[in-house]
Amino acid sequence: MNRVAVIGVGITKFGEHWDRSLRDLILEAGIKAIEDANLDGKEIEAIYGGTMASGYMTKQEHIGALIADYLGLNPIPSVRVEAACASGGLALREAYLAVAGGIYDIVVAGGVEKMTDIQTEEVTVALGEASDQEIELMQGVTFPALYALMARRHMYEYGTTEEQMAAVAVKNHRNAAKNEYAQFQKEIKIEDVLNSKVVADPLKVFDCSPITDGAAAVVLANMEIAKKYTDTPVEIIASSHATDTLAIQNRESLTSIKATRIAAQNAYKQAKVEPKDIKVCEVHDCFTIAEIIAIEDLGFFEKGKGGIATLDGETEIGGKVAINTSGGLKGCGHPVGATGIKQAVEITMQLRGDAGKRQVNAEIGMTHNVGGSGATCVIHIFKR
Amino acid sequence: MNRVAVIGVGITKFGEHWDRSLRDLILEAGIKAIEDANLDGKEIEAIYGGTMASGYMTKQEHIGALIADYLGLNPIPSVRVEAACASGGLALREAYLAVAGGIYDIVVAGGVEKMTDIQTEEVTVALGEASDQEIELMQGVTFPALYALMARRHMYEYGTTEEQMAAVAVKNHRNAAKNEYAQFQKEIKIEDVLNSKVVADPLKVFDCSPITDGAAAVVLANMEIAKKYTDTPVEIIASSHATDTLAIQNRESLTSIKATRIAAQNAYKQAKVEPKDIKVCEVHDCFTIAEIIAIEDLGFFEKGKGGIATLDGETEIGGKVAINTSGGLKGCGHPVGATGIKQAVEITMQLRGDAGKRQVNAEIGMTHNVGGSGATCVIHIFKR
Repeated sequence: MNRVAVIGVGITKFGEHWDRSLRDLILEAGIKAIEDANLDGKEIEAIYGGTMASGYMTKQEHIGALIADYLGLNPIPSVRVEAACASGGLALREAYLAVAGGIYDIVVAGGVEKMTDIQTEEVTVALGEASDQEIELMQGVTFPALYALMARRHMYEYGTTEEQMAAVAVKNHRNAAKNEYAQFQKEIKIEDVLNSKVVADPLKVFDCSPITDGAAAVVLANMEIAKKYTDTPVEIIASSHATDTLAIQNRESLTSIKATRIAAQNAYKQAKVEPKDIKVCEVHDCFTIAEIIAIEDLGFFEKGKGGIATLDGETEIGGKVAINTSGGLKGCGHPVGATGIKQAVEITMQLRGDAGKRQVNAEIGMTHNVGGSGATCVIHIFKR
Repeated sequence: MNRVAVIGVGITKFGEHWDRSLRDLILEAGIKAIEDANLDGKEIEAIYGGTMASGYMTKQEHIGALIADYLGLNPIPSVRVEAACASGGLALREAYLAVAGGIYDIVVAGGVEKMTDIQTEEVTVALGEASDQEIELMQGVTFPALYALMARRHMYEYGTTEEQMAAVAVKNHRNAAKNEYAQFQKEIKIEDVLNSKVVADPLKVFDCSPITDGAAAVVLANMEIAKKYTDTPVEIIASSHATDTLAIQNRESLTSIKATRIAAQNAYKQAKVEPKDIKVCEVHDCFTIAEIIAIEDLGFFEKGKGGIATLDGETEIGGKVAINTSGGLKGCGHPVGATGIKQAVEITMQLRGDAGKRQVNAEIGMTHNVGGSGATCVIHIFKR
């Protein structure tokens, strides 16, 4: 297996881009990443792009071909992958595998979602297609409802409180305010979260990630040639992907995501590191409870202690492990197909020392990208 | 690069499955392939699944996780890829690359589409999402219209006739009648095609592939262990993938698919064979004109001579090269995400000598899978 490095990153502002289309976003992120990698376009051998529901939300499928076309990279192979909200992470993994396996030397991995072209109620249905359509969506269960069930159970089993969940949102908005690409630029307080409108009890508006447009891209290269393009290649020292049942009713637990635990075990083993070695990590906080469950399942905190640790500031920049310095899905925004790539952009910037006001002193970082309510988990570990 | 072989195949009946869901079809094809490969499920390391528009047509995305879940294969990695009507071929290619690159030894590649759960007009929109949404679909251009433009131009440049196009449909229905999995089991005559209702002039109903439900799967293995499972492994000696502009208005030609030409060149080079070595080939005949263009672009016949060659019987079983022995998209049916895998199933059966009444004497076979109007082309060459 070849060693693989990130040699370039590009990202659009995350937010509501009323004046821009899916392809505009792809173009901006893609070109930024290619320029950041000091590449001539002709050196790119393949593209892997992640998007969840472009067909439903923008009436455009065939996204692989679209990306190659609008980046002017025809006739190279361009592959769209989809794994719900883990589509971006999975695009990164497939691109990584292709370089690690010696198929290509230089590839672009990107993610995109344009979510504001349809009504909010339709977005709820589109996202619901990541659940088990027959068992969950068709019965009227939305994603806030699924995560509300997990939150209630976590509160029951471990005494997790609404205040602790709110602390996740407060931290992630604080980090987002330091990130120019983030959708939200304002800090919020615990009371703002607790007093916000209930979406699916106990989750309130500020416990939920927003609807967002955005795109992100990274350029990967065989480590042997990476130094030709950059003085600061960031190596991907682990890539893992695990699956679980689509429907939460078929899971062993509502308070732990098995796919996360398995993917994390495999990633730590491949990278030969332990949770304590990770100093900066982007986790999949589609809802505040999801971040609490993630930091437990990833081994940063004991099961049931994630909420307390968050309230105690252990996941802040400067804490035991800096979680979601980008602002996470909650503060930076969640264009579903782009999120997994945005996580890689953020960790690359952190390990290069390019993260400005939100900079963490770290040598090793991690990304944790979840599809649906946990049926897919994709994890990558990065090293400078 | 490791050598890779097909060691098992599975397919559902193609047709209108009013009583069966997307997951029922996946399950049947997947289990048949695994059984055909004499595998214990635990030996499977990863899944690659192709589907084009499951989100739009069945309200189910997150298809990778769905496949692993319903085949009982959690927690292994399971990846959905999408490239419009080439989704199946692309799933095969990504699975091939993963084994060739040494990532896995045994993987399943599958394809599925459930198209009859929505109205026909909606299917037309869903398929239209494979075109350039802004330039084509939004202006009301449907796929029959796009291929009608190509047909008219081919008639103008080369004198191709409606009768020659009809001969494609007649041959493919004849082959389909010999294939128990095919949607259509009745032979038709040239006059039936010529007298059928016009869809987009000069294309008539019998020039168009139908709306179909179906699934297909193949098991791939590293050649070194393939013999452990089967006495008749079919090696994949080439895999290639090329892209072109989404919109046909941006192409150099309307009578030749550049992505096909480039993918074919690369495939012949990798396999070290020439067109004359291919004795059986499944080509992407979404419309009759598409088969004529394909057999020219693949180098079987001179440009402009595909129609005459077809009318003269050169593409029949027993002719110069047997094209679409399965019945093709036209006769066997076209569940869009499944088609590329069905092509691989057919060629594997042919090279194994399992093709019954439609058996061809061939050592080398080929599959040609196109996305949209030619923005994606995926080609594989197989050898017994």
